[in-house]
Amino acid sequence: MSHVVELRSDTFTLPTPQMLDAARAARLGDDVYGEDPTVRELEELSAKLLGKAAGVLMPSGTMANLAALLTHSPRGGKAVVGAESDIYVYEAGGASVFGGLVYEPVPAAADGTLPLAAVADALEVDREDPQFALPAVLCLETPNNRLGGIPLDTGYLAAAGALARAHGVALHLDGARVFNAALALGVPASDIAAPADTVQFCLSKGLSAPIGSMLVGDEESIADARRYRKMLGGGMRQAGMIAACGIVALTGMIDRLADDHAHARRLADGLAGIPGLRLDAEPPRTNMVFFTVDTDRTAHTTDSLIEGARAHGVHLAELGRGRIRAVTHSGVTAADVDRAVTVLADVMATAPGARW
Amino acid sequence: MSHVVELRSDTFTLPTPQMLDAARAARLGDDVYGEDPTVRELEELSAKLLGKAAGVLMPSGTMANLAALLTHSPRGGKAVVGAESDIYVYEAGGASVFGGLVYEPVPAAADGTLPLAAVADALEVDREDPQFALPAVLCLETPNNRLGGIPLDTGYLAAAGALARAHGVALHLDGARVFNAALALGVPASDIAAPADTVQFCLSKGLSAPIGSMLVGDEESIADARRYRKMLGGGMRQAGMIAACGIVALTGMIDRLADDHAHARRLADGLAGIPGLRLDAEPPRTNMVFFTVDTDRTAHTTDSLIEGARAHGVHLAELGRGRIRAVTHSGVTAADVDRAVTVLADVMATAPGARW
Amino acid sequence: MSHVVELRSDTFTLPTPQMLDAARAARLGDDVYGEDPTVRELEELSAKLLGKAAGVLMPSGTMANLAALLTHSPRGGKAVVGAESDIYVYEAGGASVFGGLVYEPVPAAADGTLPLAAVADALEVDREDPQFALPAVLCLETPNNRLGGIPLDTGYLAAAGALARAHGVALHLDGARVFNAALALGVPASDIAAPADTVQFCLSKGLSAPIGSMLVGDEESIADARRYRKMLGGGMRQAGMIAACGIVALTGMIDRLADDHAHARRLADGLAGIPGLRLDAEPPRTNMVFFTVDTDRTAHTTDSLIEGARAHGVHLAELGRGRIRAVTHSGVTAADVDRAVTVLADVMATAPGARW
Amino acid sequence: MSHVVELRSDTFTLPTPQMLDAARAARLGDDVYGEDPTVRELEELSAKLLGKAAGVLMPSGTMANLAALLTHSPRGGKAVVGAESDIYVYEAGGASVFGGLVYEPVPAAADGTLPLAAVADALEVDREDPQFALPAVLCLETPNNRLGGIPLDTGYLAAAGALARAHGVALHLDGARVFNAALALGVPASDIAAPADTVQFCLSKGLSAPIGSMLVGDEESIADARRYRKMLGGGMRQAGMIAACGIVALTGMIDRLADDHAHARRLADGLAGIPGLRLDAEPPRTNMVFFTVDTDRTAHTTDSLIEGARAHGVHLAELGRGRIRAVTHSGVTAADVDRAVTVLADVMATAPGARW
Repeated sequence: MSHVVELRSDTFTLPTPQMLDAARAARLGDDVYGEDPTVRELEELSAKLLGKAAGVLMPSGTMANLAALLTHSPRGGKAVVGAESDIYVYEAGGASVFGGLVYEPVPAAADGTLPLAAVADALEVDREDPQFALPAVLCLETPNNRLGGIPLDTGYLAAAGALARAHGVALHLDGARVFNAALALGVPASDIAAPADTVQFCLSKGLSAPIGSMLVGDEESIADARRYRKMLGGGMRQAGMIAACGIVALTGMIDRLADDHAHARRLADGLAGIPGLRLDAEPPRTNMVFFTVDTDRTAHTTDSLIEGARAHGVHLAELGRGRIRAVTHSGVTAADVDRAVTVLADVMATAPGARW
Repeated sequence: MSHVVELRSDTFTLPTPQMLDAARAARLGDDVYGEDPTVRELEELSAKLLGKAAGVLMPSGTMANLAALLTHSPRGGKAVVGAESDIYVYEAGGASVFGGLVYEPVPAAADGTLPLAAVADALEVDREDPQFALPAVLCLETPNNRLGGIPLDTGYLAAAGALARAHGVALHLDGARVFNAALALGVPASDIAAPADTVQFCLSKGLSAPIGSMLVGDEESIADARRYRKMLGGGMRQAGMIAACGIVALTGMIDRLADDHAHARRLADGLAGIPGLRLDAEPPRTNMVFFTVDTDRTAHTTDSLIEGARAHGVHLAELGRGRIRAVTHSGVTAADVDRAVTVLADVMATAPGARW
Repeated sequence: MSHVVELRSDTFTLPTPQMLDAARAARLGDDVYGEDPTVRELEELSAKLLGKAAGVLMPSGTMANLAALLTHSPRGGKAVVGAESDIYVYEAGGASVFGGLVYEPVPAAADGTLPLAAVADALEVDREDPQFALPAVLCLETPNNRLGGIPLDTGYLAAAGALARAHGVALHLDGARVFNAALALGVPASDIAAPADTVQFCLSKGLSAPIGSMLVGDEESIADARRYRKMLGGGMRQAGMIAACGIVALTGMIDRLADDHAHARRLADGLAGIPGLRLDAEPPRTNMVFFTVDTDRTAHTTDSLIEGARAHGVHLAELGRGRIRAVTHSGVTAADVDRAVTVLADVMATAPGARW
Repeated sequence: MSHVVELRSDTFTLPTPQMLDAARAARLGDDVYGEDPTVRELEELSAKLLGKAAGVLMPSGTMANLAALLTHSPRGGKAVVGAESDIYVYEAGGASVFGGLVYEPVPAAADGTLPLAAVADALEVDREDPQFALPAVLCLETPNNRLGGIPLDTGYLAAAGALARAHGVALHLDGARVFNAALALGVPASDIAAPADTVQFCLSKGLSAPIGSMLVGDEESIADARRYRKMLGGGMRQAGMIAACGIVALTGMIDRLADDHAHARRLADGLAGIPGLRLDAEPPRTNMVFFTVDTDRTAHTTDSLIEGARAHGVHLAELGRGRIRAVTHSGVTAADVDRAVTVLADVMATAPGARW
């Protein structure tokens, strides 16, 4: 077995040689004092790419999202979120735990959007009535992470932004993979960001930087988020070292996401031919392929498939309720995709429980 | 117009003369020092009635529920609640705001129960994975307040209790109207309470005391809740004055809830004959009647009906999405019910917008 | 032994017959809906007496203080408080626990005031620097509860108010016994309240109502505090029953506080003659007498004295570090004071450990 | 002017070439999945050096301290801290804001220790009385950062540890510069850490790594802290890149702290000869020199001195109330120290306000 085909997530991407060189050469300073020039450069570049006035480097997307929610909502405010969104499912409820926000999860439609009528319902409360938590922020995610990797189209985002403004709440966009969304839609990322007050995006994941996420928005929001970053413990000293990688990510790694999308479609095509696997109806829009084991047609289970593939060096993730996700990224070549298809076909063709 | 028929809620009940006499005569002390004998008597009586070891008087059901959640869950724990439950909808998210809990709302089935499979889903997380809030408490409500006033049957409660225990979480019962549920099921309240770790019930509402709710449970939980009560500001000095009313409520007002249930059925029967109103299919199980305006068959709207009725001294409440609720209680006689039916029929027979 | 002389606190006061009659006769409604006329009357009367625009009834002083702090400070704000103040020492840190405020305790001077230079130090931070919690509210207490029962004079309060305003923070006054302070200073309570944004005072304590405290201030602050009251669980239904007692307290019980002050001086004079007790140098200004056991001159200890007195029906409290406090109130007559002096003299004249 | 002599803080240290090489070469993985081998190596090394069972990498000392406090204390617990400690003064009150802890600051003695009698006072509360926040953790700092850089001796730490255990609370040590303390005391860092349940130390500061702090302690505490790290947003992906620098810091940079200490003494000796400056009486124990401008003997002020020095390329920090701090570190040579002395002497010899 040559090497592992890592399809669990694009968070496994490794920094490129250019990133490592940049880190080696970066001009550094103490960013807690605001004196790291490389961090400043990254923050300005990020803001510009997303069409916002300001940006701040965070150690993770979780902190960027958390700081955004704390910024947009006072104690006791309500955050309307997707019931299957990362911000609600995978971030340990941080905004409730640390900030006294109340989450109101809204179930997604089949296409992964939050129906705006349901969002409006969640935003409409009698603000004089002390029985109700007061809506403060609407969170959307694009592309989604658990429902097919589908991007929100710009029309939907504009309508959601208008709805938020009409209710006097902020719109925060969890754009962890916003450049994948932009590529899929064929628009600049700033078009996606336009209706949002703040946007989070990851330098890691597809862009392959080792560490860091950005939060961008207006000057005041970002100043508030910066304060929360310090309080949460996200103020890093010579952070230019990781910012340097981030700059390479933003200047050199966005265009190559097209390869990942092509690989995802290639993978979906390959998996479609394997008996006993059931793929999502739509072809992949970004870098994710979702499928399930059709237990009516095979003796395999989700677990036996994942375990079997792992034994042959192909790593997959289960996202709950039997949904399996494969994510392409800079560490996955076309050959890797083909190997993954072969391995999965072999596993499915073998009785579960056989020794690999 | 003689007097108002108050059907918005049973929270409008007034104390009886016996209660006022009891308050006048009560032996008092400083309950913050634990020296009010009347409060102690009420707390013991409450615990006994619900089959629990201990009880504590709270200024409101909101505080009783909040203290219970804080007692059962550390910072960052998850409370699984009904999406339409009072504890989630009407209590301003207090457990998130003040205690750092995360609510996970589960939609109710048509009969008002939370499907146990969905509850199990919400309780099952990988406890080693720091991405997830850790389930700490399951909250059920009986009878429900927004979905027909239907009681949970004891079999369901036993199964839910077993499920909670299997997942190592507490079961808290919001039994604001638990004696209505007991009456509807024909079982003692302690049977309903048996699977729960803590139960909240109101002395106000149908039992007609002016102020106060009780939280009952095991000694340790109640000691913790008592500590939270002080911190929240619920420690009251000569609280025996309101406890005395509570004792009368528990010793003299439970049996008469049968009248309220009969009145609710009488009201439902009356409303069933009014064209343009659509009643819940099932006859009332407790003291609530739910109906909507059938806008396909009348020019009236929810608002025009409520306004029209109010102009004739009949007070109704809208609970969201057009559902109208009428609640019977000690301040509503059979004659009041009949008057309400007549008024509603008259209003529906008159074009909306006419001056009342 | 006839009856107990209760000197531990004025929280032990019992409602008067007039209060009980008023409670019996009060017009009631559901105050959570804002429909209890007696509560409204009390709230208006309270605001007027303190010279503020609005007032809200709370189940306790703890909740009134907590709601005030939550109202004046966002998450992460700093509350500057007295290191020996009730709000910091006796309220379980509620504002940190529930509201994410940070307390900065300032030690009091010998006269019980917080030195304004130290307060200014605590209020002066670089607001741009995210290392610091941002000051949001200054809390003062008058009369103090642990440092002699001394009132703050109006000049000091005016200066503190100006200091707070100069730093853009609110001034909250814990005036649990504000009418004792007003009496001691010979000014109306509204003069004391004038520099403060919000004032808390107790209907219980010297005023002898069974339950309740008031928070008064401007309309907006009180509206916010009312919202927090609901969230904390302080919304009570037919609260007019206790409000009626509060109205009697405010209309009929303020003038008689002069008796309590006279009794405190009488008690201090009596205790001054007992060998082995050391009284605070200054005569009592309000209704409290502080003293310690001079262990250089007697074999008695704080505990043995308190225990001995208790055995003879005289109840005293220890407030930490050997300070004993005796509080006069409506349940303590001049004869009770004389009996207390006799009992304490007898105890001190008897070897500790003797059987009482 | 050649280059800047940066004496504001040792947080300004830059990574060494060895660190940059190590980062370039590090084996990486996704540390959120626990799969970064370099992070694991650093965590094990850190634990071993401090004599603890486990360690976890944090993006900052602030997060390490915050996670430790959250780990040791439930909602509502009390953290006893130094009134001048970093954890209380410079971390924005995070444990109150995010975790509902209550800080009780204890003033330090002249030697920078917290008097154990005062600590005991803060730890002793009646745990049955709901008026009090329950002590959960004692925090000490060594060497201190604002009171002379003095290390706590091991005897004091042992006594403090015993006191904490006797009261059932945890001892957390903010050892941001623990290796400076160890050097000053001539003991291994593990001797300092022995009485503590958890210890935080910085890889940045004197050890010169660009980013990161470690929290070490027993397995269970570190597992809990790791969970909080995720929730706070401190989970970083290919964190091995910064961990690699940390390994170099721990294996190659500890011994050279002796130079910094020597330089601090050299600086103190130099400053002692400058008229108008008043040095702390004791010679520096670690890498910090504290002094003030003696405004009785010079027209200079704190500000004019700092500004004057800055104009000549010597950076100093003011720590409040006129105390000036100069910190030596790997970026400061003996020649730099001499230049700083010359510059400060020149500035003091020149009238303030002169153009530099």
